[in-house]
Amino acid sequence: MELCKKPINNTSKYKDVSEKYCHQENRHNGRCSEFPYLKHLKADHKRVADKVVRDSTMTTGAAWKSKDAGPNRILRWVMLLSDQELLQFGLDMEMMKPGVIAKLREKSATYEQCMLVAGKLATLVYQMPDAPDCPEDIRSYLEERFGAFIENSTTCIICKEPLSFSLFEVAQRGKAEVETAHSNPRTHSDENVGFAHRDCNIAQGNKTLEEFYEWIQGILNRVNGTD
Amino acid sequence: MELCKKPINNTSKYKDVSEKYCHQENRHNGRCSEFPYLKHLKADHKRVADKVVRDSTMTTGAAWKSKDAGPNRILRWVMLLSDQELLQFGLDMEMMKPGVIAKLREKSATYEQCMLVAGKLATLVYQMPDAPDCPEDIRSYLEERFGAFIENSTTCIICKEPLSFSLFEVAQRGKAEVETAHSNPRTHSDENVGFAHRDCNIAQGNKTLEEFYEWIQGILNRVNGTD
Repeated sequence: MELCKKPINNTSKYKDVSEKYCHQENRHNGRCSEFPYLKHLKADHKRVADKVVRDSTMTTGAAWKSKDAGPNRILRWVMLLSDQELLQFGLDMEMMKPGVIAKLREKSATYEQCMLVAGKLATLVYQMPDAPDCPEDIRSYLEERFGAFIENSTTCIICKEPLSFSLFEVAQRGKAEVETAHSNPRTHSDENVGFAHRDCNIAQGNKTLEEFYEWIQGILNRVNGTD
Repeated sequence: MELCKKPINNTSKYKDVSEKYCHQENRHNGRCSEFPYLKHLKADHKRVADKVVRDSTMTTGAAWKSKDAGPNRILRWVMLLSDQELLQFGLDMEMMKPGVIAKLREKSATYEQCMLVAGKLATLVYQMPDAPDCPEDIRSYLEERFGAFIENSTTCIICKEPLSFSLFEVAQRGKAEVETAHSNPRTHSDENVGFAHRDCNIAQGNKTLEEFYEWIQGILNRVNGTD
């Protein structure tokens, strides 16, 4: 699909870092839009639409909540800038602990990567059991960009159990029971992203899925005495 | 072993909640002491001795660090008091979120349970690979109370890999690589406590070890298509 790509009005203080642009199909009718495929979720399930935008474009993670962790959430493409460039935005990387810097830098991604992740996440949302019906125009847009829908096919990328849309509403101690997760936590791309149970995501930690499965297999081998 | 049990001078504001007492053997020489078996670690490995005391007697957990989490660390036996009694100490449980209250209450334990946990943890420290040699008097005290030492026998209670004493020195982002862990996270007793890798402890979360192993076996069954 060829996208419109007309620049979108951008009032962010980081507007010079990356131009935002329209993701409607080229020669679309109506106004330009950065996330045209989220229109329906924004209207009926705002929290879910907001989560897709936030998780795809912003750095995040429990570690950001501690006082010494620096900016709590920041645009992923801003984290591609050099220390010197960040200083011009008032972000002094030298004030942060090395572990925090490494984690921030790991979460960096280009605007294009983030936009692909957002589309992929929306696609996964609509393929969850209990998901709202996807309006035809959004479905054909997403299918053309991310492949044919298979109803109810969205599973936790870690434990492979089906992920019900209703989990977006369930929260414990302020944390949603479903989180955005990465097969490789150090790569933010549409190929590498999906949803996962909160417990699964926490257990995976900073390991790749391959490393995680190998690790838990080793645990069970030792526990069962088959090692 | 019969303990001395003479009251120990207690300046804590919670002193009326539980009397601290001497854990030397009855009819001991010298001064009374609450943690006589930690004397050697206190002198040579203060951080480890402090950790044993802290983890055995105080509530803890990452969740306490957030602003709305209430007291960051508090004596476990204080958490046995009623909401009304806690209010007299300036602790208003009604100001806390239900999830936080539940977690605080789960961590409660009697003074006696905590003292047994401390002894058990010290015993496990000395049986770690690379552990400092245990002075003979401390060894016979701990062996009489917690069973014969088997050198290098201390493993992570979760993954069953040997736990090197040197891990106490390794820290990432301010967190030690070895943590106190519980087979059942809702029971603080010497039978139920041990050390674990930080990653293992995080992965176990609020599950019992039995539940954890069952859970990861289910994941592997689905991943390997044997389910």
